[in-house]
Amino acid sequence: MNIMYDEYSWPEMKELLPKVRGVIVPLGSVEEHGYHLPLCVDNALGFEMSKRLAEKTGCLLLPIFPFGQVWSTRNFPGAISLSEETIVSVLVEVALSLKRHGVKNVIFHSGHLGNAPAMKKAARVLYDNYDFKNVFYFAYPDYVKLSQGVMEAPMWKGNGMHAAEFETSMMLAVRPELVHLERAVIEYPEDTCTMDFRCMPWEEYTATGAPGDPTISTKEKGEELIRRLVGRMTELIDQFIK
Amino acid sequence: MNIMYDEYSWPEMKELLPKVRGVIVPLGSVEEHGYHLPLCVDNALGFEMSKRLAEKTGCLLLPIFPFGQVWSTRNFPGAISLSEETIVSVLVEVALSLKRHGVKNVIFHSGHLGNAPAMKKAARVLYDNYDFKNVFYFAYPDYVKLSQGVMEAPMWKGNGMHAAEFETSMMLAVRPELVHLERAVIEYPEDTCTMDFRCMPWEEYTATGAPGDPTISTKEKGEELIRRLVGRMTELIDQFIK
Amino acid sequence: MNIMYDEYSWPEMKELLPKVRGVIVPLGSVEEHGYHLPLCVDNALGFEMSKRLAEKTGCLLLPIFPFGQVWSTRNFPGAISLSEETIVSVLVEVALSLKRHGVKNVIFHSGHLGNAPAMKKAARVLYDNYDFKNVFYFAYPDYVKLSQGVMEAPMWKGNGMHAAEFETSMMLAVRPELVHLERAVIEYPEDTCTMDFRCMPWEEYTATGAPGDPTISTKEKGEELIRRLVGRMTELIDQFIK
Amino acid sequence: MNIMYDEYSWPEMKELLPKVRGVIVPLGSVEEHGYHLPLCVDNALGFEMSKRLAEKTGCLLLPIFPFGQVWSTRNFPGAISLSEETIVSVLVEVALSLKRHGVKNVIFHSGHLGNAPAMKKAARVLYDNYDFKNVFYFAYPDYVKLSQGVMEAPMWKGNGMHAAEFETSMMLAVRPELVHLERAVIEYPEDTCTMDFRCMPWEEYTATGAPGDPTISTKEKGEELIRRLVGRMTELIDQFIK
Amino acid sequence: MNIMYDEYSWPEMKELLPKVRGVIVPLGSVEEHGYHLPLCVDNALGFEMSKRLAEKTGCLLLPIFPFGQVWSTRNFPGAISLSEETIVSVLVEVALSLKRHGVKNVIFHSGHLGNAPAMKKAARVLYDNYDFKNVFYFAYPDYVKLSQGVMEAPMWKGNGMHAAEFETSMMLAVRPELVHLERAVIEYPEDTCTMDFRCMPWEEYTATGAPGDPTISTKEKGEELIRRLVGRMTELIDQFIK
Amino acid sequence: MNIMYDEYSWPEMKELLPKVRGVIVPLGSVEEHGYHLPLCVDNALGFEMSKRLAEKTGCLLLPIFPFGQVWSTRNFPGAISLSEETIVSVLVEVALSLKRHGVKNVIFHSGHLGNAPAMKKAARVLYDNYDFKNVFYFAYPDYVKLSQGVMEAPMWKGNGMHAAEFETSMMLAVRPELVHLERAVIEYPEDTCTMDFRCMPWEEYTATGAPGDPTISTKEKGEELIRRLVGRMTELIDQFIK
Repeated sequence: MNIMYDEYSWPEMKELLPKVRGVIVPLGSVEEHGYHLPLCVDNALGFEMSKRLAEKTGCLLLPIFPFGQVWSTRNFPGAISLSEETIVSVLVEVALSLKRHGVKNVIFHSGHLGNAPAMKKAARVLYDNYDFKNVFYFAYPDYVKLSQGVMEAPMWKGNGMHAAEFETSMMLAVRPELVHLERAVIEYPEDTCTMDFRCMPWEEYTATGAPGDPTISTKEKGEELIRRLVGRMTELIDQFIK
Repeated sequence: MNIMYDEYSWPEMKELLPKVRGVIVPLGSVEEHGYHLPLCVDNALGFEMSKRLAEKTGCLLLPIFPFGQVWSTRNFPGAISLSEETIVSVLVEVALSLKRHGVKNVIFHSGHLGNAPAMKKAARVLYDNYDFKNVFYFAYPDYVKLSQGVMEAPMWKGNGMHAAEFETSMMLAVRPELVHLERAVIEYPEDTCTMDFRCMPWEEYTATGAPGDPTISTKEKGEELIRRLVGRMTELIDQFIK
Repeated sequence: MNIMYDEYSWPEMKELLPKVRGVIVPLGSVEEHGYHLPLCVDNALGFEMSKRLAEKTGCLLLPIFPFGQVWSTRNFPGAISLSEETIVSVLVEVALSLKRHGVKNVIFHSGHLGNAPAMKKAARVLYDNYDFKNVFYFAYPDYVKLSQGVMEAPMWKGNGMHAAEFETSMMLAVRPELVHLERAVIEYPEDTCTMDFRCMPWEEYTATGAPGDPTISTKEKGEELIRRLVGRMTELIDQFIK
Repeated sequence: MNIMYDEYSWPEMKELLPKVRGVIVPLGSVEEHGYHLPLCVDNALGFEMSKRLAEKTGCLLLPIFPFGQVWSTRNFPGAISLSEETIVSVLVEVALSLKRHGVKNVIFHSGHLGNAPAMKKAARVLYDNYDFKNVFYFAYPDYVKLSQGVMEAPMWKGNGMHAAEFETSMMLAVRPELVHLERAVIEYPEDTCTMDFRCMPWEEYTATGAPGDPTISTKEKGEELIRRLVGRMTELIDQFIK
Repeated sequence: MNIMYDEYSWPEMKELLPKVRGVIVPLGSVEEHGYHLPLCVDNALGFEMSKRLAEKTGCLLLPIFPFGQVWSTRNFPGAISLSEETIVSVLVEVALSLKRHGVKNVIFHSGHLGNAPAMKKAARVLYDNYDFKNVFYFAYPDYVKLSQGVMEAPMWKGNGMHAAEFETSMMLAVRPELVHLERAVIEYPEDTCTMDFRCMPWEEYTATGAPGDPTISTKEKGEELIRRLVGRMTELIDQFIK
Repeated sequence: MNIMYDEYSWPEMKELLPKVRGVIVPLGSVEEHGYHLPLCVDNALGFEMSKRLAEKTGCLLLPIFPFGQVWSTRNFPGAISLSEETIVSVLVEVALSLKRHGVKNVIFHSGHLGNAPAMKKAARVLYDNYDFKNVFYFAYPDYVKLSQGVMEAPMWKGNGMHAAEFETSMMLAVRPELVHLERAVIEYPEDTCTMDFRCMPWEEYTATGAPGDPTISTKEKGEELIRRLVGRMTELIDQFIK
């Protein structure tokens, strides 16, 4: 089956949509990823993992919604910063369109962690106001646990993966031509905890925008991480959608 | 110059954005385009023309915002239907992000005519509330005039180009593998005028969703149309941005 | 039948409203109309044509909502500028009130072209959220075609009728005492097209606020134009409301 | 001076608006006024008193905004019921338009008591968000006190004037041809007080929609009431605008 | 019966809520009350009267929502000023929660007069949008009449009770330790009426923030006032809820 | 110093507020806490800890905003469920009131974890729209780590403290008379993880509403937990506010 939702004509969709297992709505962002990675990391990873997930689960795949909630990094040059409200509106209207056509399950899948609250909010709006309960949302589910045994450098603050070994390795697997590993530097900002209890844009404590150690990233690690993440999501979808 | 906005890193953007001539924000839609074309026509055409426009004008190109205002065709299977308000919010927030980074000119460019009111509204919001006046919007500008001498079949109602000879020819130029010309049929719905004065979803008067004659479309016509449209937009941008 | 909706008492309305063919909601604006016409042109023309339309079609007529969307001319002294959102809210709430009383058809009729998007939006809100589909909207329907053979001067840009021969002639028919033809001047601004692709308030390209040639206006032309426009709308209503 | 705001051209307004003492924005409603009065009472009275007030105070007069907040009577046939939010939006945008043109004082004047909260709210929005403090609002100011010695019948609940001797007399002065005094009946609903502490539409306790005694209304009383009300408002404006 | 709503566990509530006569939602404010009273007056009085009312009527009592609409006094140090919209949202969502659990009657009871419009608006939203009609609202009902024979000093403008003999006496009954009667001063601002027709923060005409004569307040007067007010509300609830 | 914000008069506040170190805004909720605890747990704990925190840090304390975001438990009898938007509005307007009076630091402190996203959102609104950056938010900061060595039973899913040993112990310290330990039961729902990736109200997987082991709770544990939490927050405030 061709997984690309929008490569079908409407008469084909008339047949297909009521029978399809689910539709994946990929999300990403345009934001800084350190000195060594391009702004498109979350879109590249989000879309690639969505494709593999669609293939493994028999779902259709929509084009990616490429802008995200990037409050913390919005002052880094190039960031495209959407409000949570706007992202919620897009997701709700996309899901309602799918529901209108008979789609039974919708999966929001983000390559950007910062979209998680918006996805959850959208799912609640769909649940509460439209009685649409079969909406699922993923953003690197269980990634800390899943990366054990693959990652070598410690994650910053225990879970920091932004533009570090984690994302850099995956980009080496997906879009190696856009990775400039030679520019990567190690930076572990002092963990003052204060960013958890107040508004604190990232430029206040990281010079690179990439806290962690991206220098030891490899394509192999990236492939394994993607394999595990897609596997975990496949398991979860199998659990949700019998 | 690489035209892809999101393939740069943030330090590169710090240099580039304040100096770049403008940034193009492509829009499209996911909606029916008759029996013979896929749902992605507006995204395919919008992105391809945006790329050529960026190259000719020295602008950078963002990833495409792939969902549009498709009220009239929303009941055809597969349509993803956003409200005008949501599209306006996305466009305003994208443009404000660009303004924050020092970008001087923003061009909204849609491969879907139905996004025109939203683009205009967004430009007014930016003008009124944020004093951002250098915002331009295009959706097949002057296409009726520009298609004279290229098109052979009459446009439905004088300006109907949706999924007809006009768009089908362009798709043959851009994504020929997705065009099933053998399924194309000629349909000229009776023009009762009533759709101009009341709400009237397209399924009430067109069986195919493609009013006009797509059967005589050719790749050559499509190439010429794209050439003219991109040329016209290039002229306009040269007029706006000295 | 007395066409004035609000000159009836409520017990009379209890009888009348469920049986009436439709109710006309007239709209206008307060905005500049050149050196020679007063700000009330759209209200005067909108209300006069609404009256004639009500008489010809057997509809009732509400008082006029006299403020409009005049973004382009809002900087000319005296303009009262409402947002589209506000106009939509007024129209939706008026139509819902009529629906509650059993009115079957509602006709929004504007003497100001700039209200057209708001009327269309309101009709869609009523259609989508309240299942009220019998809502129609007119703003000088087919006026370019209908004025052929009556108008002598070319319309600016092919369709410019604001405060020019078209509207001035109609004002001579409706409120001649408010027309100062001796102050009228001919002005055809250079058509740079740029106002179609960016925000561009009228004061940037017209000195008079009346692009065209109002000097050759006559009462007879105005009467004929009104006759044709009201005739066209009557035809359309006969087509909509059997 | 011609008091009608919208009968001037924009070059005249350019001179006039920055010098004028103030602009009156009349409000009314379309709602039931008993068996004997038409729906337009509040518009007729509001506009007539506004005209007299403009003449006495040297203010300009806008066309009337003819729809009001009529929650309590919205179920009586013919009522046009706007939300408070919508009325506030209209008033705020009208006042901001006037402020933009240099108008120094704005007077909201309603012929319908139910618009009072919306006028007050709009004035607060203008004060808080736009630093526009010279906004005044009237709806029959001090009418209970001013009607002493003119009215003969007791007001229902001490202050009920809707469609009773008070308004009926004024309509006999302003639009006598629309008054059917022969249909008027006396009705004093039992005052249970409960309508002050819960939502209670008028149809739950009044059969006529006109609580009080309209039968003894006279044109002379109406003229005197209007004289007193306009006099009181003139005094207040003289106090506000030195 | 323990009247405190939130001291029950959920299994207890499962039994209790569908059978309880009603739930009282107390409101107050944090705002100035002259030189001699603390900011918490409305919360203290509102909660104490709510408790007595709950006991007399067999209703449950929620914790107090302690912030109110205090536009007029918001510039006095310490005031916590909420918008009407926010208060309405809180009240509507609280009432809908109660409705979901089977509660049949909801009583909003405010110790602050300025919350009255928000309570009425919330009740209308519940009535219109959620078909919840058994919502009642009190804020010192009939207090002018009820205080006759108890109060000695005249109320400012005939009904001014804020921080004057009325409220001060009640505070002496409820929280005497917070009353500094020795700081109380008599102040009767000149009644220019203008505060009824324009936005006019209290600091423009009162130095103390306590117009009236609080100096002759006594605990006995306060007890009697509370007794009468609670008695009146009990009567009204008996009338509403059979 | 008396820490109770609202027990001062406005002249006292005029002196005090510009000099005070900060103001604490306590939040709570009304929601189920198992068979053995009342609905008021979050209010009781939130207010008690806020009091101790105010005393230790020299801050003033506002009355508690007693309703929270309880989406997950809203179907348990008695829950009062506010939307995130409404809580954000309340917090923003409270903080702006404090800012207007010269308060330099505002601390949102919630006794309910579910309010954390609303507090963070409110802080961002204050930061972005009002340039108010000194806003801090706490909801049991670092509670998992801080409870090590005190708690004996495992937390459900590693961090579940709702109505379990953690909260029950604290309630025994704060409001022992409201704790019915004899009704407490042990319940560890199977951890299917699915509640992290979809909307899943608690009643779908917990019978008690109290996942964990509350039966071994003691007052001593509760006192120690409060001491640690208040100590941690005091440290953080000392770090933020020099």
